Amino acid sequence: MLKMKQLKSKITKDGGLEVYLVETELPDPAGNRLIVRMEAAPINPSDMGPLFGPANMAEARLESESGKSILKATVPAERLAVLAPRLDQEMPVGNEGAGVVIDAGPDPSAQALMGRTVAILNGRAYAQYASVPADKCLVLNEGTTPKQGAACFVNPLTALGMVETMKHENHTGLVHTAAASNLGQMLNRICIADGVPLVNVVRKQEHVQLLRDLGAKYVCDSSLESFPADLEDALAETGATLAFDAIGGGRMVNDILYSMERALSRGASGLNTYGSSSLKQAYFYGGLEQSPAILNRNYGMMWAVGGWLLTPFLKRIGKEREAELRQRVADEITTTFESKFTKEISMEEALSPEIVQQYFAKKTGEKYLINPNK
Amino acid sequence: MLKMKQLKSKITKDGGLEVYLVETELPDPAGNRLIVRMEAAPINPSDMGPLFGPANMAEARLESESGKSILKATVPAERLAVLAPRLDQEMPVGNEGAGVVIDAGPDPSAQALMGRTVAILNGRAYAQYASVPADKCLVLNEGTTPKQGAACFVNPLTALGMVETMKHENHTGLVHTAAASNLGQMLNRICIADGVPLVNVVRKQEHVQLLRDLGAKYVCDSSLESFPADLEDALAETGATLAFDAIGGGRMVNDILYSMERALSRGASGLNTYGSSSLKQAYFYGGLEQSPAILNRNYGMMWAVGGWLLTPFLKRIGKEREAELRQRVADEITTTFESKFTKEISMEEALSPEIVQQYFAKKTGEKYLINPNK
Repeated sequence: MLKMKQLKSKITKDGGLEVYLVETELPDPAGNRLIVRMEAAPINPSDMGPLFGPANMAEARLESESGKSILKATVPAERLAVLAPRLDQEMPVGNEGAGVVIDAGPDPSAQALMGRTVAILNGRAYAQYASVPADKCLVLNEGTTPKQGAACFVNPLTALGMVETMKHENHTGLVHTAAASNLGQMLNRICIADGVPLVNVVRKQEHVQLLRDLGAKYVCDSSLESFPADLEDALAETGATLAFDAIGGGRMVNDILYSMERALSRGASGLNTYGSSSLKQAYFYGGLEQSPAILNRNYGMMWAVGGWLLTPFLKRIGKEREAELRQRVADEITTTFESKFTKEISMEEALSPEIVQQYFAKKTGEKYLINPNK
Repeated sequence: MLKMKQLKSKITKDGGLEVYLVETELPDPAGNRLIVRMEAAPINPSDMGPLFGPANMAEARLESESGKSILKATVPAERLAVLAPRLDQEMPVGNEGAGVVIDAGPDPSAQALMGRTVAILNGRAYAQYASVPADKCLVLNEGTTPKQGAACFVNPLTALGMVETMKHENHTGLVHTAAASNLGQMLNRICIADGVPLVNVVRKQEHVQLLRDLGAKYVCDSSLESFPADLEDALAETGATLAFDAIGGGRMVNDILYSMERALSRGASGLNTYGSSSLKQAYFYGGLEQSPAILNRNYGMMWAVGGWLLTPFLKRIGKEREAELRQRVADEITTTFESKFTKEISMEEALSPEIVQQYFAKKTGEKYLINPNK
């Protein structure tokens, strides 16, 4: 038995969010299980849901109860219904991370990994140790540090998944919003390497420059008045009919579908009641803005939008292809799939309301890393 | 050469809509072509786009220019861009209709149909005569009148297409909005005959009764306060995860997706960050309301919405299956696929602003029929 600290999140039936550290124990590893000492786990936007749900984090506070520090906040009553399955339960948090194998079950596949640095996607990475089956780890190449390998799954496989989805669904180019993000820069590197036309949509002029400096050919700034025309031109040149949107709320996806239709209809003549015959597809893969998405449907009938999620996508491409993608991530983790971290914090620091405000803001280019053994 | 009157629609570059009758000629039939004397052509919601585009029909007026009556209205400037392909062109109108074969080309397949009553989907049915290839006609059974067979394609194939789509995309039940419509009643009859669970959503209590009288098991009235709970119960009982929406604007599709998620999450426990793992799909097949659709995305990530269109659907199922569906329509045109018409009008009457107001209102249960030879 290995004692350890682990970060947990609970939302109570009356809408109280509580995030705190618990002392717990890990059983000794059996079979092909490994014990990984966690040294680096990123705070991704996708960790916010498990951590905080829809709580009002602007008013989060740290309270002390019988010597235990508890980060508290309130979930609006109208958001509780969809949270029913998790209410009043202590939830593990932290999608992914990396560390060093310090113990292994008797299985030779596990024994072979003693001392190796591995990346894991276990949904409970904000803990000092993790117990994972050997075949579920991504074994990092010699010389890769846990910090370098902390973010091997969520962003890299999502970025690769966008390109794979494009191929699977017979599109030939991509649009990406919030494109200056860590993931956006990664996607830009993949698309340059793989020769995939990519239209980057950003919201600030400084991000245009950032992406151009990284070799991006098409960067459209949605804060400019010329945005609809710029976007339409980029779409006409690239032929991109598939968009991935990180924002969720507002009119961005609507405006992209409209510009796609305009680009596709160039030179068309005739009744065209239902618009162009090419499918215009947009996927929401994130929700940086919680406001509703507005669809005015002014782009014919051949359009589709929906949620895009990594796990069902990986099921769809099959184990063999997933293994290839994972290996590419391991091999290019310090280049194509590099993540830059603004700050490394401990699990205790992750509970500080001041620090929560910083990483909860999900500012483009800022990314926090938890070191559970700091 | 056969002289005839034909209804045409034109939208000018400066936003003027003009609908009027032209005198034109049809060449004598060659090959397998038939000349059909059109006796009945329905005014479907899907005819409104070709006829009027997004013009403001509330202020339509009839003007006389050199002896020609022209129905005029104005298209808002901001809606003109997407109409570019049709601007300044005279467009034929009328998706479908039926009539009697009065002349045929020398091909035996055409000669065999002399005197028969046939239904056609030619996109120019508001005309005294039509020239169509024999193999594109639906030959009606002996005894079926043109009026009975006027609406063989748009509504029947759309209703059948919903059930086919359900099977193709691995759903096991359907939701339909504006369910008391002509098409909704048809879908209700198909689902009862085929044993498909159908949740009918209506907006008035009188429509609940109408559908119940037609044997519908699940009818939810969205005007009631209990609607979200009623819908969730019906979805839980039927397991329906596929919706077809005729309305387009507002929150209806959003609310259906939310209730689906609530029904699917019954009994779930755990983090459930991305909601249930079943895909919740909604298709817009109409646009009774032009306001934007609002999606608050409060139903996990496994959801999709998009446009649904008959023509690409028919391509997808292939010619053989399409022929089976067409034959079913011909065989059941006075039962399952019966359309009821409020009023029969001439093409001249279709230009009267007073009559336009009536059929443009697209009121549930009201349907106009044009008799081009009246």
